[in-house]
Amino acid sequence: MLNAVLPSFLVLDPLLHQWLLEDIGRGDRTTLALDLEAQTGQAHWLVKEAGVIAGLPLAERVFALLDSQTRFLAQVQDGQWCDRGTVIAKIEGSLAALLTGERTALNLAMRLSGIATATRRYVEKIADLPSQLVDTRKTTPGLRILEKYAVQVGGAINHRMGLDDGVMLKDNHIAAAGGIGPAIAQVRGRIPYPLTIEVETESLDQVTAALEHGADIIMLDNMPPELMRQAVQIIRASSDRVKIEASGNVTLETIRTIAETGVDYISSSAPVTRSTWLDLSMRLTS
Amino acid sequence: MLNAVLPSFLVLDPLLHQWLLEDIGRGDRTTLALDLEAQTGQAHWLVKEAGVIAGLPLAERVFALLDSQTRFLAQVQDGQWCDRGTVIAKIEGSLAALLTGERTALNLAMRLSGIATATRRYVEKIADLPSQLVDTRKTTPGLRILEKYAVQVGGAINHRMGLDDGVMLKDNHIAAAGGIGPAIAQVRGRIPYPLTIEVETESLDQVTAALEHGADIIMLDNMPPELMRQAVQIIRASSDRVKIEASGNVTLETIRTIAETGVDYISSSAPVTRSTWLDLSMRLTS
Amino acid sequence: MLNAVLPSFLVLDPLLHQWLLEDIGRGDRTTLALDLEAQTGQAHWLVKEAGVIAGLPLAERVFALLDSQTRFLAQVQDGQWCDRGTVIAKIEGSLAALLTGERTALNLAMRLSGIATATRRYVEKIADLPSQLVDTRKTTPGLRILEKYAVQVGGAINHRMGLDDGVMLKDNHIAAAGGIGPAIAQVRGRIPYPLTIEVETESLDQVTAALEHGADIIMLDNMPPELMRQAVQIIRASSDRVKIEASGNVTLETIRTIAETGVDYISSSAPVTRSTWLDLSMRLTS
Amino acid sequence: MLNAVLPSFLVLDPLLHQWLLEDIGRGDRTTLALDLEAQTGQAHWLVKEAGVIAGLPLAERVFALLDSQTRFLAQVQDGQWCDRGTVIAKIEGSLAALLTGERTALNLAMRLSGIATATRRYVEKIADLPSQLVDTRKTTPGLRILEKYAVQVGGAINHRMGLDDGVMLKDNHIAAAGGIGPAIAQVRGRIPYPLTIEVETESLDQVTAALEHGADIIMLDNMPPELMRQAVQIIRASSDRVKIEASGNVTLETIRTIAETGVDYISSSAPVTRSTWLDLSMRLTS
Amino acid sequence: MLNAVLPSFLVLDPLLHQWLLEDIGRGDRTTLALDLEAQTGQAHWLVKEAGVIAGLPLAERVFALLDSQTRFLAQVQDGQWCDRGTVIAKIEGSLAALLTGERTALNLAMRLSGIATATRRYVEKIADLPSQLVDTRKTTPGLRILEKYAVQVGGAINHRMGLDDGVMLKDNHIAAAGGIGPAIAQVRGRIPYPLTIEVETESLDQVTAALEHGADIIMLDNMPPELMRQAVQIIRASSDRVKIEASGNVTLETIRTIAETGVDYISSSAPVTRSTWLDLSMRLTS
Amino acid sequence: MLNAVLPSFLVLDPLLHQWLLEDIGRGDRTTLALDLEAQTGQAHWLVKEAGVIAGLPLAERVFALLDSQTRFLAQVQDGQWCDRGTVIAKIEGSLAALLTGERTALNLAMRLSGIATATRRYVEKIADLPSQLVDTRKTTPGLRILEKYAVQVGGAINHRMGLDDGVMLKDNHIAAAGGIGPAIAQVRGRIPYPLTIEVETESLDQVTAALEHGADIIMLDNMPPELMRQAVQIIRASSDRVKIEASGNVTLETIRTIAETGVDYISSSAPVTRSTWLDLSMRLTS
Repeated sequence: MLNAVLPSFLVLDPLLHQWLLEDIGRGDRTTLALDLEAQTGQAHWLVKEAGVIAGLPLAERVFALLDSQTRFLAQVQDGQWCDRGTVIAKIEGSLAALLTGERTALNLAMRLSGIATATRRYVEKIADLPSQLVDTRKTTPGLRILEKYAVQVGGAINHRMGLDDGVMLKDNHIAAAGGIGPAIAQVRGRIPYPLTIEVETESLDQVTAALEHGADIIMLDNMPPELMRQAVQIIRASSDRVKIEASGNVTLETIRTIAETGVDYISSSAPVTRSTWLDLSMRLTS
Repeated sequence: MLNAVLPSFLVLDPLLHQWLLEDIGRGDRTTLALDLEAQTGQAHWLVKEAGVIAGLPLAERVFALLDSQTRFLAQVQDGQWCDRGTVIAKIEGSLAALLTGERTALNLAMRLSGIATATRRYVEKIADLPSQLVDTRKTTPGLRILEKYAVQVGGAINHRMGLDDGVMLKDNHIAAAGGIGPAIAQVRGRIPYPLTIEVETESLDQVTAALEHGADIIMLDNMPPELMRQAVQIIRASSDRVKIEASGNVTLETIRTIAETGVDYISSSAPVTRSTWLDLSMRLTS
Repeated sequence: MLNAVLPSFLVLDPLLHQWLLEDIGRGDRTTLALDLEAQTGQAHWLVKEAGVIAGLPLAERVFALLDSQTRFLAQVQDGQWCDRGTVIAKIEGSLAALLTGERTALNLAMRLSGIATATRRYVEKIADLPSQLVDTRKTTPGLRILEKYAVQVGGAINHRMGLDDGVMLKDNHIAAAGGIGPAIAQVRGRIPYPLTIEVETESLDQVTAALEHGADIIMLDNMPPELMRQAVQIIRASSDRVKIEASGNVTLETIRTIAETGVDYISSSAPVTRSTWLDLSMRLTS
Repeated sequence: MLNAVLPSFLVLDPLLHQWLLEDIGRGDRTTLALDLEAQTGQAHWLVKEAGVIAGLPLAERVFALLDSQTRFLAQVQDGQWCDRGTVIAKIEGSLAALLTGERTALNLAMRLSGIATATRRYVEKIADLPSQLVDTRKTTPGLRILEKYAVQVGGAINHRMGLDDGVMLKDNHIAAAGGIGPAIAQVRGRIPYPLTIEVETESLDQVTAALEHGADIIMLDNMPPELMRQAVQIIRASSDRVKIEASGNVTLETIRTIAETGVDYISSSAPVTRSTWLDLSMRLTS
Repeated sequence: MLNAVLPSFLVLDPLLHQWLLEDIGRGDRTTLALDLEAQTGQAHWLVKEAGVIAGLPLAERVFALLDSQTRFLAQVQDGQWCDRGTVIAKIEGSLAALLTGERTALNLAMRLSGIATATRRYVEKIADLPSQLVDTRKTTPGLRILEKYAVQVGGAINHRMGLDDGVMLKDNHIAAAGGIGPAIAQVRGRIPYPLTIEVETESLDQVTAALEHGADIIMLDNMPPELMRQAVQIIRASSDRVKIEASGNVTLETIRTIAETGVDYISSSAPVTRSTWLDLSMRLTS
Repeated sequence: MLNAVLPSFLVLDPLLHQWLLEDIGRGDRTTLALDLEAQTGQAHWLVKEAGVIAGLPLAERVFALLDSQTRFLAQVQDGQWCDRGTVIAKIEGSLAALLTGERTALNLAMRLSGIATATRRYVEKIADLPSQLVDTRKTTPGLRILEKYAVQVGGAINHRMGLDDGVMLKDNHIAAAGGIGPAIAQVRGRIPYPLTIEVETESLDQVTAALEHGADIIMLDNMPPELMRQAVQIIRASSDRVKIEASGNVTLETIRTIAETGVDYISSSAPVTRSTWLDLSMRLTS
């Protein structure tokens, strides 16, 4: 089963509308002038570069918003690896809907598939180890909810969605509060109680302090593997409920070494910030 | 002088607001809980990977929307190439504004700088030739106006902004209308008259037809260089006002060869779809 | 075939909603209090003053937004000249939808039909000449997209839709840039390349300068017919691709003389700013 | 003192923003490309056709929304009759704000001044009589709040602003409810109690029925003057608090005769639906 | 017949959307993670505390907005008194829609039923007297249109909906205008003419002044019953069209005494500001 | 120090705007007609019923949105207990801003102060015990973010803000997933990893299952005190990191007994759903 969960269209429709209107502006001059609303057409979506597909339910919705009569028949499901040449969707509808919606739908699917594909590459490196890859808040402005969906499609787990569904204490926060202890104490009393508190640490002393003061998640930031391994041991010895996240310098080359330290999560922005779009195209077949 | 033009904040502010709220949600739990509104701080923005900077005026605005007292002092201007380690901005303001706005501002600048940097690489390949690089409508949904700004910052020219400020007749449009002639004729009478009509061609016959029927712009799609050169000759012989655009298979390796055919414009989505983010970071200095 | 093109409802629906809510406010007190939702009614739309009808698809949509069960049967099509007494639409639906939507739907159709009718009067004066009437940006705030549709319904062509889909260099722009040459050069490098550049001219010297520097459209502003004729000759001698627009002092009396100078386009705001509403009314028939 | 009241900008700003963006779209290509933000200019607004000015506070706000530094110095006040050639405003600000805002600000003022001028003509015909001119709900979609302001500027009084701030029982409502009595009774119990109920009547029988059942306002619809006079007598004999409104066939020729019947209010859509724009223009003076 | 009127969903849907999104945020984590979209369920709504039900049509709409396939079968109608244990609605639909919409729908119905129930208690105290209970503008921000609906459901009448559908002259307004006479005169000429003017009075002198100057509604504010009775006599002696409203210190204990003074309306915020939520719950039955 | 944290105005301003416009509609007829913009006034806010004040920063903002010149001088701070007669704020500004904003600002502060006061009563009952009171998602639609702020002002802690910042597995979720174990497992892999999972339990068997499968929070729903005490012992024996929440039948009478069972949190909707508004009023002093 695909682990990725897509929010309901009640949440997504305003975004899809906005994106269609970004492209359409005051009207698709070409399609309108040619009166293509009454003509029916069929199209294929083709993979031009192998990778993991993400975004087909969104593409379907984009065409439906333009014309509820359009039929979008996904030939594969989000999360599936597809080779070059695969037909991933067949679409039937008015030529107007097909041609006006093409770019918005493809842009979305290409961007998301690019992220899913890059994520998959990282995930495969550690597939046999218990550590899991997680994303970050480095996402394209306006697209976070869907880029994080693509990360899930690629096989990784999401970190918090925004500044409001988790607490992260970085060095600046800790300095401003006067230490890890005071920072955690002050935050604990002023946030919704189910929220977890994560503390960023760079040394074993900080790890110990975070542990003592009840951090829920301890992030080991940019630690060398040996130091990371020691940190994991210290934490595990104290509690089996504290989650451990490794961060910093995560590449396809380093990720396995990091995972072998025994951390629970490895966070990286690379699948989002270092990925390119997966090449897809639409071809009208009649 | 920088050629890039940034639309007025009347146009951009709704987007910036939306993006801040995407990250903040119901409130920045960490910063709010630590009462950082009253504490003042200073920060530097650092380049961690050499490239062309784009987006500083937007970053400034993001912080200003959070707290109008924030001072953002750009140390370089958009369009400038910066080496690793360069301080590109100094910021003073409440710790709350600095920490809450950091991610949104950086995400924007990193994405735009990545595009500007990639664009610059393409542009440099043909800097001594008259051909100009132009972008496409393959842009991240919701971000087009700014990604196209970044393309300008990188030294290229924008193609149309959406489906409404130019006409593009592709094979499907032409087939539906019954040929290039009928398509142009029908469109000409039904669009705002200052709009130009671009026709996509794949053969010299199509080039000739487009020329005869009064196309304003002729796109040579995926033609081999030799064929492209012949097309250019045919068009130039007929008119010095028709613009010629080359499209398809544009890479850092091929772009110079394409430019040497004498086309006016070379369109490529690569600076947007094949670029990664430029690594920037914010460091609090007090 | 009607030349007018109506943008998709994806673009128009937010406007129609806004206009319905402008009238309805917190609720149609009269209709709600009388429980008219369950009662069905039929209505006719009658022409009370001969003219060209415009806006029926919009009226249909207004009623559909109030109650998707409403049936709106247009008896004529937009663009048709109708005499006093003509029934132009029959509507069936809940009395609530009919009575609540009546005013918004009629206001829209009366305003647009007034514009279409005025436009038709101008267009008929020059129907046998190649010159075409075009509109301007003098449109009612918030209604531009539909007023320009009505202009098309009346038989004219649209000028640019806004400040972003064409460039217009007026005397102030030219003065600020230091002349026609510098102005065109600076603009050319900083706009989406398919956009055309129009230059406003008042003398033959300016016409010549605009021509030399590559203006795409030359507007002859307020020139006497004889001067206009000379300008046309100069431009035609140089290029068959530069478009010529006459502007200023366009009335039903002068338009034919202007057209006879050979210009391509004659722009006038009169069909929009000098027209009155066409009188239409709704009558419940049961 | 001017009787017209302008709603607060809290109410109007969203409309003004929308209208500016309607014109600006993705950016004012001409002004942006010429870098006119840093250049300062001065402009005059000139009357090109005598009439009553309306809309100057709105014009001021339009420029302020574009650039808060702009200074708009009204030389006359809304409601003042101005002859051709009068300078009604002086504006100082960036050339960008002046040129980008010009059209939206002028369109608004020209439309509103046209309405105010037409209204004034009607009002003057009955200035020495107690009857007052009132408007209707026949207003341009989206512009009602300001068109009704213009009607006030011209010297008339507003009728209800929408379907929710007053009740109007027309023949269809009355028929559906089973008579004037049942209609008033049913409505009275289901509306906010301060709202008034107006009944449309076409005969003395209906007038009497409306009076008996407690209508607050009785509209005499399309009655000949003699019949109207009798209706007024019947109503006045019964109560000095019932307001009497005449409606139908109100022209500059008929309005005085109608007023002489003694009605309180004469409603007409003509100042809105039969007026043309007052010609105003902006001239840059430096 | 229920006297309450619910505005059309054209008016209400934006509010319902906003409220659903307030709860859902970026997605219902629990329901999404469990893939409950494909599973169907049935639920009952139960009364846990006797009272008057209000809000069922809104609850139905909430579920329909989440999933148009949901069937909501109201078992009682708004306005009905229900004992503890009554099943007021049966719902069938996807488990996702049922569980995601539960809280928003219930919160709305519980709040509105609480108001309706409290209103009913007041109304019953004076059911045999001609005076009617009316509400005030003391309503929860954002919920006025529905809280006023609940007041109607409870059997009372609405006062004005906002600051724009009626005029209320309080002591501060009167003082600023220089007395009741000048205040009424100034207002009368500057408001939509169908609007009524209410004057707040605290003494018989003020009552007389309001009467003389043509107030439509006279509010007797915080007067002792005897004084109130005298005021009623004075007003009735002068006109049978002036409406009399009592205000201040209205409780379940005092309301009958106030009604017996003969006033037309008794205004009280207590049903809104002093009511608690009626306890309702949803139980899944399969 | 006050524990309550108010989100930034970037988040709140759209709500405050919406609420002001809900009351103002098309304009405050009374204030506009009396030209009160130019007159300055002063006002006091008075407590008419002892309680905890909440909402003063919001009231200040409401007046500032109407007129940025208004000065709002809070005399006490949110969270302070005030006796009847206390002046809690002094306001200076245009009479227009004072009178137009009065109702919206007071409605907000009265509602929030009512909640804060009720919360305080519950909190005081258990002030010497380690258990803490938390709220629920039973909040007025549209007002959650501020009602939860008021709960904090009263001295309690917030539960999750919506369906997206925490997971709650109720019996229906558990049944649909096939047991507590499968439910937790499925959810854990499909949510942002920092989110906690709360399980609702009604028996010791369920408590044990939740504990074994790694629930982060265990809710003891409607358990008798003795059973609750046993559940607490079982959980504490297993882990000191699992949070324990008691729910159901929480009243001023029962809360202390519940707290004495040793649970960490006691959740109750009563401070929101069972509170009435705190009576506050505004008096103009000049």
